[in-house]
Amino acid sequence: MAEEPPYVLSKIVLGYDGSGFSGWAAQPGRRTVQQALAEALGRVLRLPEPPALTVAGRTDAGVHAKGQVVHVELPVTADGDRLIRRLSGVLPPDIRVFRVERAPDGFDARFSALWRRYSYRVCDDPALADPLDRHRTVWHLRPLDISAMNTAAESLLGEHDFAAFCKKRAGASTVRALQRLEWTRDPDGIAVANVVADAFCHNMVRSLVGALIPVGEGRQDTSWPAKVLAAGGRDPGVRVMPAHGLCLEEVGYPPDAELAARASVTRAFRSASGC
Amino acid sequence: MAEEPPYVLSKIVLGYDGSGFSGWAAQPGRRTVQQALAEALGRVLRLPEPPALTVAGRTDAGVHAKGQVVHVELPVTADGDRLIRRLSGVLPPDIRVFRVERAPDGFDARFSALWRRYSYRVCDDPALADPLDRHRTVWHLRPLDISAMNTAAESLLGEHDFAAFCKKRAGASTVRALQRLEWTRDPDGIAVANVVADAFCHNMVRSLVGALIPVGEGRQDTSWPAKVLAAGGRDPGVRVMPAHGLCLEEVGYPPDAELAARASVTRAFRSASGC
Repeated sequence: MAEEPPYVLSKIVLGYDGSGFSGWAAQPGRRTVQQALAEALGRVLRLPEPPALTVAGRTDAGVHAKGQVVHVELPVTADGDRLIRRLSGVLPPDIRVFRVERAPDGFDARFSALWRRYSYRVCDDPALADPLDRHRTVWHLRPLDISAMNTAAESLLGEHDFAAFCKKRAGASTVRALQRLEWTRDPDGIAVANVVADAFCHNMVRSLVGALIPVGEGRQDTSWPAKVLAAGGRDPGVRVMPAHGLCLEEVGYPPDAELAARASVTRAFRSASGC
Repeated sequence: MAEEPPYVLSKIVLGYDGSGFSGWAAQPGRRTVQQALAEALGRVLRLPEPPALTVAGRTDAGVHAKGQVVHVELPVTADGDRLIRRLSGVLPPDIRVFRVERAPDGFDARFSALWRRYSYRVCDDPALADPLDRHRTVWHLRPLDISAMNTAAESLLGEHDFAAFCKKRAGASTVRALQRLEWTRDPDGIAVANVVADAFCHNMVRSLVGALIPVGEGRQDTSWPAKVLAAGGRDPGVRVMPAHGLCLEEVGYPPDAELAARASVTRAFRSASGC
């Protein structure tokens, strides 16, 4: 019997159109990104079973990703570029792997991450609504004042208990450090929120955006989102925005030498948070 | 009985995701852009029947548009901005109307046009293939040398009989003036052909792109597409590229004072060409 090659920790960067998936996390009977990627890796590398994947951001049903990060143990013989090409023939077209590389020592896709960056796209002018982008852009009927939304967003920055903007999970902390929350207009006139935090609790970006939209419409004052944050509970005026406007753009990690230390710090604070 | 308001000629600019349509032109039992738009106009404006639409570019099944132009007679009471908003509630999400305005005197969406501009998108690197763009980008497994493709493209510019690159229609001329055929890389590294001509015959852009791809792969010399053009017949080495990479970006018209003159010139030369 041939000896199996040793396994090494690998880092995979991938993107997907979340429209056709019940989110990242494998669930029996559902089409998920985790299961599709694990099966493709198992098939291409002829592994005895689909490998275990650890992901940076467990995206919900319908949420997209352009820079999702995974770590996984792969045979040392697997070559990154060749693997990308072979995966492209096996993966469904709504998932693509962009990079495969040997992970640095101490790397953990989830716990080594310093920050996650998400985008949220809203088209607030029917004359700018591009049908080719409708699967990743929410169409909003009223015009938005993104300057007012940015004023309101500033008061949410920093480390807070974001319980008001999170779907509560038992035993999980909802304290997060919101590093950036800023609206810009892209060249096509679409309002895009760029949201960066150390990590996000469940529904957090979609709720933050949902708290800013009424400000952009002029229905709420710029001080309202901070009041909701301070009140600490779910507010019926905050809509959890649709999943398809949301995309995980990028995950940031510290320099290689700090990966392991970062992972142990994060693990100690947040291991139960599911984020 | 209330008197009907007078009708005036209107110009409509629209976009669509062609994926779910059997092209522009109405066909019994098929889902077409023409039929969907005419029905939405008829419904929103409470017309006795869906209005007759004349289009600048009769796109094929699966082909997209961002700047398609239509002319149509609408009641003089129809207000452009209000109509766009009301259409956005009635049209299917894969069609959006961007502009509705009173057409200048002598305007004909088809025959007044000076040029049509199409784009064709090819991703030639599996590490750049964005699943969110897969419905509008052809994924190509081999890397393309766009500089070689541009050299070859230059020799196709000008007025020629493009029979080698057209699906022949009885009685229709295949003489066209190709004004631009140029490949660039967009910021995401996608190879994009920009193709401008006075008009295009059937399958022409997809065949021109199909003639340049083998040059980009290094399988054909840069002089080959010009040889195919000169030979004047369909060449089995020229693949008609898939529809979903193609998008009608823009239609150009002369200044208002020249619209009617342009229309009569074009009508005289090309009325049977279907382009």
